[in-house]
Amino acid sequence: MKENDIKSVNGGVCAAKGYLAAGVYCGIRRNRTKKDLALVYSETPATAAAVYTRNRVKGAPLAVTKAHVDAGKISAIICNSGIANTCCAGGKELAEETCAIVGETLGIPAESVAVASTGVIGQPLDLAPFRYGVPELKAALSRDGSDAALAIMTTDTISKQVAVEFTLGGKVCRLGGMAKGSGMIHPDMATMLVFLTTDAAVSKEMLQRALSGDVADTFNMMSVDGDTSTNDMVLLLANGMAGNEEITCENDDFRTFMRALNTVNIALCRMLAGDGEGATKLLDCVVTGADTLSDAKKAAKAIVCSSLVKAAMFGADANWGRVLCAMGYGGAAFDPESVDVVFRSAAGEVEVCRGGSGTDFSEEKAKEVLSANEIFILVRMGKGEFSAEAWGCDLTYDYVRINGDYRT
Amino acid sequence: MKENDIKSVNGGVCAAKGYLAAGVYCGIRRNRTKKDLALVYSETPATAAAVYTRNRVKGAPLAVTKAHVDAGKISAIICNSGIANTCCAGGKELAEETCAIVGETLGIPAESVAVASTGVIGQPLDLAPFRYGVPELKAALSRDGSDAALAIMTTDTISKQVAVEFTLGGKVCRLGGMAKGSGMIHPDMATMLVFLTTDAAVSKEMLQRALSGDVADTFNMMSVDGDTSTNDMVLLLANGMAGNEEITCENDDFRTFMRALNTVNIALCRMLAGDGEGATKLLDCVVTGADTLSDAKKAAKAIVCSSLVKAAMFGADANWGRVLCAMGYGGAAFDPESVDVVFRSAAGEVEVCRGGSGTDFSEEKAKEVLSANEIFILVRMGKGEFSAEAWGCDLTYDYVRINGDYRT
Repeated sequence: MKENDIKSVNGGVCAAKGYLAAGVYCGIRRNRTKKDLALVYSETPATAAAVYTRNRVKGAPLAVTKAHVDAGKISAIICNSGIANTCCAGGKELAEETCAIVGETLGIPAESVAVASTGVIGQPLDLAPFRYGVPELKAALSRDGSDAALAIMTTDTISKQVAVEFTLGGKVCRLGGMAKGSGMIHPDMATMLVFLTTDAAVSKEMLQRALSGDVADTFNMMSVDGDTSTNDMVLLLANGMAGNEEITCENDDFRTFMRALNTVNIALCRMLAGDGEGATKLLDCVVTGADTLSDAKKAAKAIVCSSLVKAAMFGADANWGRVLCAMGYGGAAFDPESVDVVFRSAAGEVEVCRGGSGTDFSEEKAKEVLSANEIFILVRMGKGEFSAEAWGCDLTYDYVRINGDYRT
Repeated sequence: MKENDIKSVNGGVCAAKGYLAAGVYCGIRRNRTKKDLALVYSETPATAAAVYTRNRVKGAPLAVTKAHVDAGKISAIICNSGIANTCCAGGKELAEETCAIVGETLGIPAESVAVASTGVIGQPLDLAPFRYGVPELKAALSRDGSDAALAIMTTDTISKQVAVEFTLGGKVCRLGGMAKGSGMIHPDMATMLVFLTTDAAVSKEMLQRALSGDVADTFNMMSVDGDTSTNDMVLLLANGMAGNEEITCENDDFRTFMRALNTVNIALCRMLAGDGEGATKLLDCVVTGADTLSDAKKAAKAIVCSSLVKAAMFGADANWGRVLCAMGYGGAAFDPESVDVVFRSAAGEVEVCRGGSGTDFSEEKAKEVLSANEIFILVRMGKGEFSAEAWGCDLTYDYVRINGDYRT
C-alpha cells in the first residue's frame, strides 16, 4: 500500500498486532443471553491515552483508570455492562478490586489494568460475578474481538467495531476499536465507551495529543439525546508491536497516525449515532461557509441536538425552519438571510432554503429524500471558509419507550 | 382585602380595567374550527415592557413590536397563529402592514400596535385574511378574553389565562395574562408568547425592570424540549386605569406589583409546562442548599431539560441516577456525595437518594408517587442557602408524533 493510504480492514480491537480479547456472560445482568463482561489484553504493555466524561458526577471506575493510565503502561482493559458502579458507596474500592482480580488472573500488575463500567446508575456492583467471569475471559482470549464488542453493549442494537491499516516509515500498522453507546450521549465532552488499540509506537505525550485533538472533531460532535453520561471514556492503547520508529513529535508519521485515528473515530461516531436509542436514521450535518471553526461547530451541533429537527427527520418532514431555529439559538454568528439548506440522501437532494427563505421545493421529492436511513443536512452559512460536521439521529417513539422504563 | 394580599380572580388579559379582547377565525389556518387571530385593546394607551427571544433567527413581527414598544405607548396587540412570519422575504413589511390595518380599523396610530405571529417557520404570510379578520375582531371586542386566548394557540391543548387582584396605596389593581406555547420552549431566554395586562400605573422604566427581573425566575426556568423559538415574546401593558399613584421607584408598591407579577407568571409557567407538547405530567423541580443562586438554577434547569429524566418520569420509573447525571453536566458546583433526592406528588413522597447513594426505597411506592400528573423533584445539595425552581414536562410518544409531522 502507498505511504499515505488509510485502508479499511476487518476487525476491531484485535486488528492490531498483539491484542487479544474476549466477552462472556458472568451474571451481572439478569438476562443470561446477553454477555456482560469484556476483556482486552495486550501482549506487550501499551502506552495509553484517555479522555473522560466531564460530568461532575463521575463513575467510580474512571478515577481508578485515570490513576493507572497516568502512572504507567496498560496491559488490559476490563469492562462490564449492566451496572455503572456510579453513585454507590465504596465504588472506587470495587473498581480497584476488579483490577486486582484481573491482575492476579493474568499475572500482571493490578495498576496495568484499566477498568470501565456501563449500565444503571445507583445500583450496587457485586464482585462475585467477576471472580467467576475473569478466569473464563482469560480462557476465551482470542484474536477475534467480536465477543468483547458484544459484551460492552447496553441498549445498543448492533456491536460497533472498526479498524484501519496504514504505514509509518515502511512498517505496516493497524488501529482498531470498539465502542458502545446508544443513549445518554451528548457532544462537547468525552462520551460513551470507546476502546482503541494500535500496534504503532507512539510516545505517551503524542498519543494523548492525537486523541484529545481528534475527539474534539469526532465524538464531541455527536449527540443522541443531549445527556452526557457519568461513565464515559475513550481509551487508546499503543503497544508498539508494528516496529515503526516511535512517534515523538508532530512529523509526517504523526499526521498519518492522526488520519488513521480520525478515520476510525468517524466510523465509530456514525455507528454510535445511527444506533442511537430508538433511532431509525443517522443524521449527518455538514455546515460550511462559517467565519470561524467554532461557529461552524456550534451550528452543526445545535442542529443535530434539536429535538424538533430530530422529530421532523423521524417523520420525513422537510420542516427546515427548525434547522434555522436551532442554528439561531446555538450561539454561532451568522446572518440568517445568507443561509442555504439542502437535504440529501441516497434518494437524491432537495434545496429547501436559499438566502434564509423557503424555496419552491417539491414536498413529494423532499419526503422521498428524507425517507432514507442516512440523511445529510447541508448548511451553507455564506460567510467564511470554515466548516464542521456533526452526527446525530432521529427522535422516535422507541426512544421514549426505551427510556420510559430502562431499569426493568 | 389586605394591602399585602395577592388574590386570584377569574379571567386573563381582560381582568384589569380598560382592556377588551377578541379572537376569530380569519383564514390563516386551513382548519376552520380553530380561531387564528386575536386582538387585545386598551381603552387608554398603555405603558409597555417586553422581553424577546434571544434566538439569532427572529420572527419579523418582533422587530416591528420592539420599535413600537421602544417608541411610545401601546393601545393594541394583534396576534395570529398558524404562520410564524419568520424566514420569509418581506416579513417585516407584512408585520408593519398588519399594524396599519389594525390602526386604521380601530382609529389609533399604527405605531401603537404590537404584533406577534406563531406557527410554521418559512411559509409566507398572506395579508388578505387580516383585512377580513381585523374588522371582525373590532366588532367582537368584549371584556371576556377567552376567545383571544384560544386564537393564539398552536399545539396547545388548553388555553392559558390567569389573573390576580392586589392593592397599591388603597387602589384595587389587577394583573392578568394569557399565554400560548407547547413546543419549541426552552429556558434562559424569553420564550413563548405571553401577553400580560394590568390597570396599575407603572413607569416604563419600572415596568421593564419588573418584567425582566421576573422572567429570569419564571419563564426562563421552564423547558418543554430545549428548543428556543424564533418568535417568542412576553409583553406587559400597564394602562394606569386603577388610579394608583404611578410606581416610579423600588418602593413597597413596586414590591407588591412584583409579587403579583410573579404569581401570574408562575401560574402561566405551570400551565405551559404541564401542557407541553405530548406531556402527561408537569415536572416541578426544586433545588435547595446550593452555594449560589446560579448553581441552584443550573441544577434545576438541567434536571427538567434532561430527555432521560423526562422519559423516566413518563414511565413512572424512579431512575434517580439520571437526576444526578443531569446535575453533573449542568454546570453547577456541588459535591455528589452530599446530594439527596426526593420524589413527591399527591400520592406521597419517597426519598430515593441520600448522600449521593441510593436508599432502600420501595419501588412500588415510588411507582405510585410517580404515576401522578404533577411530580415534584426535590433536590437538596447540602451546601449553602440558595434555592431555585424550574418547570418542565415528561417526554412522551405524543411529543414525537406531534413533531414528526407538524406541518401537515
